[in-house]
Amino acid sequence: MVKLSPEDALVREIFLGFSKGRESGVRVAAGDDAAIWQARKGQETILTSDWFLEGTHFLRELHPADSVGWKSLARATSDIAAIGGTPRCFLLNLALPKTATGKWLSGFLRGLRRAANTMGCALAGGDTTRQERILINVAVIGEVAKRAAILRSGARPDDLLFVSGRLGEAALGLRLLRKSRGKVRTGSAAVRKHLYPEPRIELGDWLARHGIASAMMDLSDGLSSDLARLCEASGVGAVVSEGVVPIAAGISRTEAIRLALHGGDDYELLFTVPAHEIPRFRRLWKNQFGVPISCIGVISKKRKLLLVKEEAETVELVLGGWDPFRE
Amino acid sequence: MVKLSPEDALVREIFLGFSKGRESGVRVAAGDDAAIWQARKGQETILTSDWFLEGTHFLRELHPADSVGWKSLARATSDIAAIGGTPRCFLLNLALPKTATGKWLSGFLRGLRRAANTMGCALAGGDTTRQERILINVAVIGEVAKRAAILRSGARPDDLLFVSGRLGEAALGLRLLRKSRGKVRTGSAAVRKHLYPEPRIELGDWLARHGIASAMMDLSDGLSSDLARLCEASGVGAVVSEGVVPIAAGISRTEAIRLALHGGDDYELLFTVPAHEIPRFRRLWKNQFGVPISCIGVISKKRKLLLVKEEAETVELVLGGWDPFRE
Repeated sequence: MVKLSPEDALVREIFLGFSKGRESGVRVAAGDDAAIWQARKGQETILTSDWFLEGTHFLRELHPADSVGWKSLARATSDIAAIGGTPRCFLLNLALPKTATGKWLSGFLRGLRRAANTMGCALAGGDTTRQERILINVAVIGEVAKRAAILRSGARPDDLLFVSGRLGEAALGLRLLRKSRGKVRTGSAAVRKHLYPEPRIELGDWLARHGIASAMMDLSDGLSSDLARLCEASGVGAVVSEGVVPIAAGISRTEAIRLALHGGDDYELLFTVPAHEIPRFRRLWKNQFGVPISCIGVISKKRKLLLVKEEAETVELVLGGWDPFRE
Repeated sequence: MVKLSPEDALVREIFLGFSKGRESGVRVAAGDDAAIWQARKGQETILTSDWFLEGTHFLRELHPADSVGWKSLARATSDIAAIGGTPRCFLLNLALPKTATGKWLSGFLRGLRRAANTMGCALAGGDTTRQERILINVAVIGEVAKRAAILRSGARPDDLLFVSGRLGEAALGLRLLRKSRGKVRTGSAAVRKHLYPEPRIELGDWLARHGIASAMMDLSDGLSSDLARLCEASGVGAVVSEGVVPIAAGISRTEAIRLALHGGDDYELLFTVPAHEIPRFRRLWKNQFGVPISCIGVISKKRKLLLVKEEAETVELVLGGWDPFRE
């Protein structure tokens, strides 16, 4: 019998327990040089990848291993939802210290499997190696009907600006988790949202299929940073009404608004709808996915981000979201 | 004017100078949540990803930045060649310390661009973040005609075993580079092979198109480790003749054989050809790609790896290739 190397044994352990994913189009997965996947007719392929690094994106003492598994896939899958696609399969790149190969790895894989099943995304392949800190990079492959993708660049002046869910909840969850030194796990909705965010796949897909949104992206770094990106890509500006931004419950209004404007990790969708599409949007939208949708402002020709405060004073919305390269 | 964040500015810098890659099928690249890519009709999609980490896979003081750029793409692309496919586009995941954002990044991107152009592989997207050490993960998307992929699992008893190029050259190159503390750059073929390996894309594609090989993989961890993987996947063993293994020049024969059997990083192709296909292989093969091909042994029913030494004694081939999880 030809002996299996330790690396190959680890790869085998990782693939155990993941569904074969035949429906996902994956024909060849673990155990070969590369995975083979079949795109469907009439679809374009969506490609995205995301870092999830110990020390930068999560802390081993604060974040349960199964949350790290769930979130590493959820973050990348949210980018597929963000252009109106559905996920199909993913590549898992994992670098592990010895201290994280036993119990930690089991918890991580449990969370990852749960995410993969929930999001309909099959494990196709990836790479493993040894490192002093846990390094994760997940690449997700998705699909969207030809020319139905909703890009960041399609927003036009007078389009209305929408968000899903409540903003700032994940940032609040992180704060609560820090206060309790990792002990609060499932009690609070905000903590759950921070640990197990749910990418808005169904909503994104619905908006793409009905051709309702003119531009879309997901909120990963915070509204102020991400809205700037959407406006930059579209060559427009925006006016946001502070009073109608959906905020987290259980803290002061001032603080909740600050988190909603600048807190990251929400993985909600930010999208624009042309004014003439609003009646159709209203007619078709039956809140079928259990996610609230809020109109928070309007796109402007003037390339600035303005915030109408509740006292009716208007100020410039300054970038306050998370950016690893900002000093 | 909406201000660009530092991370977005870095992403823009990275994408500058890469060709638009319209022929690669990439429709939307930098600047959106995800890339959009169009698979071609009659093809299956190949997905692969590879770590390339400072300290583990390269050393900043030893490896020139442009070699790191070249090799990070070449390694992953070699996995596409390994199943008979051609590369189409890639995702670049880069985590950088501040000390590597200026001159180092320029050199890295120069090498990466040269590799992307040489290998016909367009930059589609990826992710960037900050980290104390340079972390690279490259995912390559390739294509192969439906059902033409050559897997590891197709080797059958009595198939002949072939390799491309000379084995152990890259390991010798690393040794020379270490001796000269990074000063030897282009003088030696072995050093060039270590710094700028050339994935055998044309050869792999040719073998797949002609349906000649029954199994194939690339040699990244060394012949002894990788042949064990091919045999394990195929449920077979192999007998290798030490005397005909193509080895590096310029060192003692004993040492050259040791490097050829256990040295990693060669990115040559290892493949098997059924005996009845040998005449057709010989007739069609005109060495059109300038790469030598050597028959080094035969596949056996008995699930062992045997090495026929030059003194005609037969010993078991023990795994000596590189494995990050071996103690």
